[in-house]
Amino acid sequence: MRAPKFWGTLPGDGCLVKLVLHTRRLFIKVVQMKLSELAEKTGSVIDSGSPDVEINGAAGLDIAVSGDISFLANPKYTPQIADTNASAIILNNDAAITRDDIAVLRASDPYLAYTRTLRLFHPETPIAPSIHSTAVIDPSAEVAENVEIMANVVIGRNCSISSGVKIFPNATIYDAVSIGENSVIHSGVSIRENCVIGRNCTIHNNTTIGSDGFGYAKDEAKRWLKIPQVGRVVLEDDVEIGANSAIDCASVGETRIKRGAKIDNLVQIGHSCTVDEDALICSQTGLAGSSVIGKRVILAGQVGIAGHLTVGDDAVITAKSATSHDIEPGKVISGIPGFDNREWLRSTAAYRRLGEIAQRLKQLEKKVLGGDK
Amino acid sequence: MRAPKFWGTLPGDGCLVKLVLHTRRLFIKVVQMKLSELAEKTGSVIDSGSPDVEINGAAGLDIAVSGDISFLANPKYTPQIADTNASAIILNNDAAITRDDIAVLRASDPYLAYTRTLRLFHPETPIAPSIHSTAVIDPSAEVAENVEIMANVVIGRNCSISSGVKIFPNATIYDAVSIGENSVIHSGVSIRENCVIGRNCTIHNNTTIGSDGFGYAKDEAKRWLKIPQVGRVVLEDDVEIGANSAIDCASVGETRIKRGAKIDNLVQIGHSCTVDEDALICSQTGLAGSSVIGKRVILAGQVGIAGHLTVGDDAVITAKSATSHDIEPGKVISGIPGFDNREWLRSTAAYRRLGEIAQRLKQLEKKVLGGDK
Amino acid sequence: MRAPKFWGTLPGDGCLVKLVLHTRRLFIKVVQMKLSELAEKTGSVIDSGSPDVEINGAAGLDIAVSGDISFLANPKYTPQIADTNASAIILNNDAAITRDDIAVLRASDPYLAYTRTLRLFHPETPIAPSIHSTAVIDPSAEVAENVEIMANVVIGRNCSISSGVKIFPNATIYDAVSIGENSVIHSGVSIRENCVIGRNCTIHNNTTIGSDGFGYAKDEAKRWLKIPQVGRVVLEDDVEIGANSAIDCASVGETRIKRGAKIDNLVQIGHSCTVDEDALICSQTGLAGSSVIGKRVILAGQVGIAGHLTVGDDAVITAKSATSHDIEPGKVISGIPGFDNREWLRSTAAYRRLGEIAQRLKQLEKKVLGGDK
Repeated sequence: MRAPKFWGTLPGDGCLVKLVLHTRRLFIKVVQMKLSELAEKTGSVIDSGSPDVEINGAAGLDIAVSGDISFLANPKYTPQIADTNASAIILNNDAAITRDDIAVLRASDPYLAYTRTLRLFHPETPIAPSIHSTAVIDPSAEVAENVEIMANVVIGRNCSISSGVKIFPNATIYDAVSIGENSVIHSGVSIRENCVIGRNCTIHNNTTIGSDGFGYAKDEAKRWLKIPQVGRVVLEDDVEIGANSAIDCASVGETRIKRGAKIDNLVQIGHSCTVDEDALICSQTGLAGSSVIGKRVILAGQVGIAGHLTVGDDAVITAKSATSHDIEPGKVISGIPGFDNREWLRSTAAYRRLGEIAQRLKQLEKKVLGGDK
Repeated sequence: MRAPKFWGTLPGDGCLVKLVLHTRRLFIKVVQMKLSELAEKTGSVIDSGSPDVEINGAAGLDIAVSGDISFLANPKYTPQIADTNASAIILNNDAAITRDDIAVLRASDPYLAYTRTLRLFHPETPIAPSIHSTAVIDPSAEVAENVEIMANVVIGRNCSISSGVKIFPNATIYDAVSIGENSVIHSGVSIRENCVIGRNCTIHNNTTIGSDGFGYAKDEAKRWLKIPQVGRVVLEDDVEIGANSAIDCASVGETRIKRGAKIDNLVQIGHSCTVDEDALICSQTGLAGSSVIGKRVILAGQVGIAGHLTVGDDAVITAKSATSHDIEPGKVISGIPGFDNREWLRSTAAYRRLGEIAQRLKQLEKKVLGGDK
Repeated sequence: MRAPKFWGTLPGDGCLVKLVLHTRRLFIKVVQMKLSELAEKTGSVIDSGSPDVEINGAAGLDIAVSGDISFLANPKYTPQIADTNASAIILNNDAAITRDDIAVLRASDPYLAYTRTLRLFHPETPIAPSIHSTAVIDPSAEVAENVEIMANVVIGRNCSISSGVKIFPNATIYDAVSIGENSVIHSGVSIRENCVIGRNCTIHNNTTIGSDGFGYAKDEAKRWLKIPQVGRVVLEDDVEIGANSAIDCASVGETRIKRGAKIDNLVQIGHSCTVDEDALICSQTGLAGSSVIGKRVILAGQVGIAGHLTVGDDAVITAKSATSHDIEPGKVISGIPGFDNREWLRSTAAYRRLGEIAQRLKQLEKKVLGGDK
């Protein structure tokens, strides 16, 4: 159930504004927008409904309220159109709609247009430049003027904190870390020595960047001798890392997450890995050391990638799968170990009857080979 | 090996008390109790042994010491009865016992009776109302009088902290969070904006509540455009969340963990999920977005649940299994993807011989179809 | 790409030293060393090259620069020898090399010799004894003189912190915790009541030691009744735990990680488990309660171990596998549930063709049994 909204009218920038309670960005002016303006800003066109309809928010079909705009991207949810309280809906160019009491926008990608709509209604909170009195910042750190550093943040020697950076409470930045413009570091995050965070990155709570890689050699007494882990982690620009994830530094050299890659919660990135641009790594996936994940690769939830291998650009590895071999670009892979997804679907279908299959084979052997089997 | 105990006699409430060192609740008076009283308070009956035997503690058969009471729930551990040092044991109504030097209590559910016994010997430590001088609490937060807020806790604007709440050091409570009566927040926990924590909840260390859901739309340049995540997380009453878990907020709307649900360590709950009452989610399990986990469902360790599906009430998904389809109430499911547990057991048995099965099929083909295969 | 190095000459202990920027241990003097000295200290012998060649660092073949020493342990990387910029290489006694512009050391275990080399070039940073003014240390805690306790660390009642201990910012040490000599606790770590950390242990960021085990009994109303978790966790000497892991305390008794065991990131260790000496547990592996992991066992990434079982000494469980049964010493196990690795390899090979196998069986049945099938 959606949280109630309470409305007020405040002076705005040429448009009505409202106060929204119980959303993440409290006390922010949220734009109220005419359908025509929304269409223009999201790259969609009005198919039906008045261009002057006022839209107050955006939400999924099931939880939208009157005044909201919603969307249909997956035909599975078509039945929800009949029941939605939304005042407008974004559809693709082919989708039919029988209701005539809802304004309709058309877009080639309704999900993308909806995302742009949400972003209009929920702009990022601007930072409130300030450094809390309880923050502990080493005098050797270079901190730009326009930053927001909250309570109990600790920043080590020779760090560089750029303009627009926001660091939430109880985060720890070790020595010689560099954080690029407009990046957001949430509470409980630890960033270890010498790591580099690019611009417009977001690191969610309790994530660790740059912990030691897991490397040991076995000595003559069969005990583990630690291999020094003195490399670093580099996040390029526009990288987002979820909560409670761990990205290890390289032993020597670096672990690199390239521009635009997105990493979910509870993900493990081993030492010396490279995650290329716009890759998407879902929750609880793990990469062992020195692997390379290509551009726009999607690793679904709980995937495992062994060490020292390459997943080619645009490949997809489906949930709970694993690979210990290189994956060619563009392939869709499933299973443990992973192979072609279509073959895997056939195998899983047969697997459900594997007990019966074994039984049938035995029967057949009896018939063909006689009773000796 | 169990930690040694040192005894002392302190004024008590009509019964002997002792000091226990090396247990989690130091310096707490722990009740010493006659067998008769224990039986009464745990819903069990004395089968043999003096009602006046004094019991000092409770522990498993293998580590119990003289003066302890133990239990047998799983017949697998029956042999341990011969060797245990316990002075008393809780058995179900059918279990035989040959030793006559141990007092015997009978209960229909010995595990439950043992749990009640442990709870008698280890009552919760009452809070010591206080706010540490290093805690940073926004003046707009409403904080009840009877709370214990420890060092370096940070509490944001417009929060509401109810009576009996205990917050351990270095926890971070973002703006507009509400925490219900008698809830315990451990060190390193982060609770993000607008989340609601019910009464009698416990959140263990370094867990994140309300981090952004993992949602992006692909734009025309094949880059990921972030979908705003402005919803919240609601934990209803009596919810317990383990350590280092992450529960994401909804994009719009809420993620809800209902009354009495228990979630273990390193669990991922995706945005907009609902976990219904008394569900049990074991360690390292992950839920993608918008799924519904029914009442009393048990998800064992390392389970994966795909998005937008429903697991019916009382269903069980066994360890390391996954589902991308709805699960009917009461079903027991195993495998990747999951299917009926009994069928899965047959399939796994055959799978161990699959190499041989394939070989036998080939032989049979040769025999039937001739040498051309 | 490896970070650039800037050199300087500083007074040293009878050998040249250098300053290394962009490595984890800033501003540390790093020894420059003659090949002869390196050979001696790593137990290797010079096969070719001048004993007086000066070596400045160590790195993998692909990223080594001139002046570095590298190594070859896995023949897979032999082709990299042709392209490496390293000035010296450690090879085993059999490996051939055609380049004569690289000095060659021979060692029976090049990986171990390389590890020792790296350790020579990157010695541990000595602690800078100090207690930061913002640390909150209960007066009842015993803290040795020679410790480094950083900003916002919180240490509870009756703790014991030994000489040489280093605690990074925002770590929380609950009551009655003992930390042995020379152990390192990274930022964001929580160590719960009564836990014991041995000597020379390292615990990486945001890890939780001693959170409550996940134990509940179902009551008559089918609700979960919490089983008190009042035991502790003991880490013996030389244990290393990665980032964002969780090790639960026992209900009664203890969870024990024995001497020299190494545990990676995001690992779950359930209550009352024992991990024996020199075991190696890789990332995202989970142990349910009361299991025993033998000496030198290797659990690869994302492995699952059910409760109350024993994995024998020197056993290996490969990545993403699971077991719900005891494993004999020395076995190599794969699959869910796990069985002999060689059999599993045969089964996985057949599994890729399982759809086709089922189809062929059907054809054969038709042929043998007639068209009725």
